[in-house]
Amino acid sequence: MVLKIGRGAEAPPFLVMDVIAAANARAAALAAGMPPETPPGTTGPDGGRVIRLEVGQPGTGAPRGAAEAAIRALQGGAPLGYTEAFGLPSLRARIAAHYGTKYGLDVPPGRIAVTFGASGAFPLAFLAAFDPGDRVAMAAPYYPPYANILTALGMRPVLLPCDAATRFQPTLAMLERLDPLPDGLIVASPCNPAGTMLTPDELADIARWCDRNGVRLVSDEIYHGLSYGRPEATAAASSPSAVVVNSFSKYFSMTGWRIGWMVLPEELCRPVECLAQNLFISAPHLSQVAAEAAFDCAPELEANVARYRRNRDLLLAELPAAGFDRLSPADGAFYLWADVSALTGDSVEFCARLLAEADIAATPGVDFDSGRGGRFLRLSYCGPEADIAAVPGRLRRWLGR
Amino acid sequence: MVLKIGRGAEAPPFLVMDVIAAANARAAALAAGMPPETPPGTTGPDGGRVIRLEVGQPGTGAPRGAAEAAIRALQGGAPLGYTEAFGLPSLRARIAAHYGTKYGLDVPPGRIAVTFGASGAFPLAFLAAFDPGDRVAMAAPYYPPYANILTALGMRPVLLPCDAATRFQPTLAMLERLDPLPDGLIVASPCNPAGTMLTPDELADIARWCDRNGVRLVSDEIYHGLSYGRPEATAAASSPSAVVVNSFSKYFSMTGWRIGWMVLPEELCRPVECLAQNLFISAPHLSQVAAEAAFDCAPELEANVARYRRNRDLLLAELPAAGFDRLSPADGAFYLWADVSALTGDSVEFCARLLAEADIAATPGVDFDSGRGGRFLRLSYCGPEADIAAVPGRLRRWLGR
Repeated sequence: MVLKIGRGAEAPPFLVMDVIAAANARAAALAAGMPPETPPGTTGPDGGRVIRLEVGQPGTGAPRGAAEAAIRALQGGAPLGYTEAFGLPSLRARIAAHYGTKYGLDVPPGRIAVTFGASGAFPLAFLAAFDPGDRVAMAAPYYPPYANILTALGMRPVLLPCDAATRFQPTLAMLERLDPLPDGLIVASPCNPAGTMLTPDELADIARWCDRNGVRLVSDEIYHGLSYGRPEATAAASSPSAVVVNSFSKYFSMTGWRIGWMVLPEELCRPVECLAQNLFISAPHLSQVAAEAAFDCAPELEANVARYRRNRDLLLAELPAAGFDRLSPADGAFYLWADVSALTGDSVEFCARLLAEADIAATPGVDFDSGRGGRFLRLSYCGPEADIAAVPGRLRRWLGR
Repeated sequence: MVLKIGRGAEAPPFLVMDVIAAANARAAALAAGMPPETPPGTTGPDGGRVIRLEVGQPGTGAPRGAAEAAIRALQGGAPLGYTEAFGLPSLRARIAAHYGTKYGLDVPPGRIAVTFGASGAFPLAFLAAFDPGDRVAMAAPYYPPYANILTALGMRPVLLPCDAATRFQPTLAMLERLDPLPDGLIVASPCNPAGTMLTPDELADIARWCDRNGVRLVSDEIYHGLSYGRPEATAAASSPSAVVVNSFSKYFSMTGWRIGWMVLPEELCRPVECLAQNLFISAPHLSQVAAEAAFDCAPELEANVARYRRNRDLLLAELPAAGFDRLSPADGAFYLWADVSALTGDSVEFCARLLAEADIAATPGVDFDSGRGGRFLRLSYCGPEADIAAVPGRLRRWLGR
């Protein structure tokens, strides 16, 4: 007989994965000399190579010192079995020390949980902090898995529509208007997809408001280290009950290693440890070894940041004349959130044409804001400088400017 | 104000992790020459080194060819970013081919989902197949995270008490007696902790019964490759709707690499892919590279199996005279499930004394069967042969035989 499919599996796809697949197919077809689904004569003014602005990950690999630490561990022949559920003690100590050097904050290693990327952190945090049916607020646009993981776990995302007026970030006034108050709040600074930040004061005010009102704050800080002049603050400095999520994927350039961490409130340490023992056993051992070494790779990592900054400056300076003139203030991360309502009301169709005709892959905004995303694109500028430099010209020609 | 903790975090700890920590502490204290919590004169007849029978993972690392493939990938400098959510196409194809060579079964690569170990497979399978409140049956004793993950997701484990009369495996008669019928059934052959197997006919009968009755079967096959004479069968051969879970952790000796896979029913492929995109993004990239190479390492892996077999034969032959005379038939995996009711009714206290006085770490049965586990221990025999050979003598002296 036909068996049912669980309601938890109704979470929508994370569409950017499908965009990546389309861009891969387009790139492969171009490499083979035959764009299969494109009418002749429309392969774009610079045809022959797809520029990838859709991918939310650095084009660089792990820093050299991290890769070398992994090679040494492999050549040494250690078994690399499970670690403790919260990770290697030396890595937890190193992460805790990072809060001292970067934020001047004393965080005991016992509050650090090493996780399977930030992806592995969210289900642990949500299960430990919320119950099925609980309402968890977040700005829209937002990182789609926030809402999709909550939904899969039976929790309810509450969207706070944000726009350029508040740098696409939530405000205390928005939170105070919620009735009833939510059970939780997710903030991200810098955020994905808008690349915008809260000021340290705004974050502290929100964290304290959450504490006062019994709202569990989950602060996604995975883009820390990638900002361009505005100061970074951690919610751990303002609230003892906030869950801080971070990752080695972005600043440390280690996406495929699947390694991240949380700073947990004291009262959630043991509940999350029990959940992690059951749900994950431990994060990948070799990735933990490499991650610890990545803390010693600042020069290489800062060179990456300098490249993102140059890419950002170039796009902010040249995209307006190319036809994309309503851009989010790109405070951090490596994203621009472009309001293209003057050009389209259907960003999915627009991105398909942009890929087929100008060989530029971008992510339609509907992934991040189902309501208003038809008028937005996300552009990621973490790719090679030569590619980014070619974008304004391609766009100008494609849009006939 | 004090914030609540989610009901999902009420899952009990996976106690073996705490046993491992106690054994680590004991070993460290012995190495430092001062067992701190042990009265003088009780450090055991062979004091000085802890024999580890509590750990459910091979003492060996990844096979040489797998580690070398990882080293080559790292030295080659490829970025090792996210892969597709279901894994590298070449690895999926290799796993699909494995079903042809090992079981004579044609499985399309599109039904293979590469996961973050078996740990990552279970939440995906449970969310895709079941709803909160659904009842999922399993034999007791059982692998604790089955029940703990279900509970964290709001589902309800239904335990089928099993004993030596059915080799600690469920039977059709037990299933037919359930009223109402469960929404799902988890089977494991070989199983953890008892190390016993279903015959291929028994597994096929159960799989077909599940299909007929609308019960989603989840078949945990992570100990395949580790059996000692009895044939192994996959549920995928008998049911198009079963979810098969497997892993590179046990036969392939790659626990810390956190890499496994599922064979999915066609109708669950897209729902699980969407869930995986949101919950995991992808399995660790480097682990996928190493796992693919591990399929070419049969001689080294078969040597591991031969060692487990010798360890098993030694314990089955010598433990009865040492005082452990009621042992599960050790068909596969690397576990013995020892009924020690003649010696204790409190296996937690018994294991603590066994560690403190005889320097043998074993896992109390309560982890696997809260009801009857006070009368059982799990002994893992995947450690070094010299250690295993010393166990019967230590036990005999400790028990005064």
